Amino acid sequence: MNTRPTILITNDDGYKAQGIRALTEIMRTFGDTIVVAPDSARSGAGCAITSRLPVHVEQVEPGVYSCSGTPVDCVKIALEKVLPCSPDLVVSGINHGDNASISLHYSGTVGAVLEACMKGIPAIAYSLRTSKKECDFAPYSAVIEEWAGRVLREGLPTDSCLNINFPEVPRLAGAKVCRMARGMWHTEWDDAGTDADGKSHYTLTGTFRNLEPEAADTDYWAIDHGMAAITPLSLDMTDYGLLAALTGKKQ
Amino acid sequence: MNTRPTILITNDDGYKAQGIRALTEIMRTFGDTIVVAPDSARSGAGCAITSRLPVHVEQVEPGVYSCSGTPVDCVKIALEKVLPCSPDLVVSGINHGDNASISLHYSGTVGAVLEACMKGIPAIAYSLRTSKKECDFAPYSAVIEEWAGRVLREGLPTDSCLNINFPEVPRLAGAKVCRMARGMWHTEWDDAGTDADGKSHYTLTGTFRNLEPEAADTDYWAIDHGMAAITPLSLDMTDYGLLAALTGKKQ
Repeated sequence: MNTRPTILITNDDGYKAQGIRALTEIMRTFGDTIVVAPDSARSGAGCAITSRLPVHVEQVEPGVYSCSGTPVDCVKIALEKVLPCSPDLVVSGINHGDNASISLHYSGTVGAVLEACMKGIPAIAYSLRTSKKECDFAPYSAVIEEWAGRVLREGLPTDSCLNINFPEVPRLAGAKVCRMARGMWHTEWDDAGTDADGKSHYTLTGTFRNLEPEAADTDYWAIDHGMAAITPLSLDMTDYGLLAALTGKKQ
Repeated sequence: MNTRPTILITNDDGYKAQGIRALTEIMRTFGDTIVVAPDSARSGAGCAITSRLPVHVEQVEPGVYSCSGTPVDCVKIALEKVLPCSPDLVVSGINHGDNASISLHYSGTVGAVLEACMKGIPAIAYSLRTSKKECDFAPYSAVIEEWAGRVLREGLPTDSCLNINFPEVPRLAGAKVCRMARGMWHTEWDDAGTDADGKSHYTLTGTFRNLEPEAADTDYWAIDHGMAAITPLSLDMTDYGLLAALTGKKQ
């Protein structure tokens, strides 16, 4: 590559989050970075878009844009209204909290990467299993660099993107390419009281259960064993096994 | 089945929408229905959840509950706080607007069905390609009944659900089990002006391009040819082709 690549960076924790600052620092070693990220936390936004209401975007620092929309909106508006040309790579994160197993469906971090993938741009989501706001991201920089560099050099297949999750450890035990674990969230609502009108209020919480804790080929297993979990995702959600069963054709 | 099944109904257009009323009428022929749907339109909510803020739910009519959250919140709160037992089927829709091809990623109608699937409950999303608020849903009732009945009798495989899309026609030309078409949204932002602070505002719009209009095995092709498109979806977004390539294993 003769010229420095352009890298678009976003997240769902907002442009001020520590994780996106750390990710931007790492990406600067590869190319020219532009951050277009939510103005505040948008956890649990999934692939949500802002319909009907206007979205605004403004530069808040050199190379950093704040957007009033969801993470998916950030990518859409960056590509069409902020960046002078299509970026070579979109990265999202580093999310404070993992987005492994089924949790990726709720993830704005992953949603942004799916959006980039829909636009034909190689994209990687990075998330850290932590409940802390202040984290040391240094243990993950080598894996972040390795996969960003690899994707910049080799690209990704059409309609594919990467979801990378880290355990909170002082030193990674390695990195493993793996599939999504099967899992389930349960006991998801805390009682938040009843108001004067008699309406019951609840706050979303929940406990995650890994439904296949022994499966060593899954993202959860890798994270549980101190490794980075590298999970390739497909935009195509068609269930080809069920499609074959319903049409009576062999897969 | 000796007892009437319990059917949970939701959508992303809100409990007052014409589509959910039509769907509820049809479902009453099968079982006992409970509607738990957003208090107003939540188009484009995808799999978004409400984090941090409280969500409330209240009965607004016999068997109809209004929820302040997203479509996914509606399913979560229905299962844990409203229904006395797990439903036999979750249906979502009928959405005013199709959710075929990549548009399903943004869809709250589909998000609700993915959530039910995550909880192990058979689920079907129904959407109609229309821009009208007032629609005649009669042409679709036979296919809606057929698939709801089939899923109630036979169930669905674990981690699979159905996404059904209709063309707006007086009489369907048939129904086709098919995969998601590849597609792309472009020209997505209308300029909504600049405010006194100099911030640029944009409103999300866009034009969809079917990237494989000749592919007769896709949802878009079926809809374009006057047929209902029945697309099985998988919760597992792992790209097994890329996983095999990255790990050097044969698929």
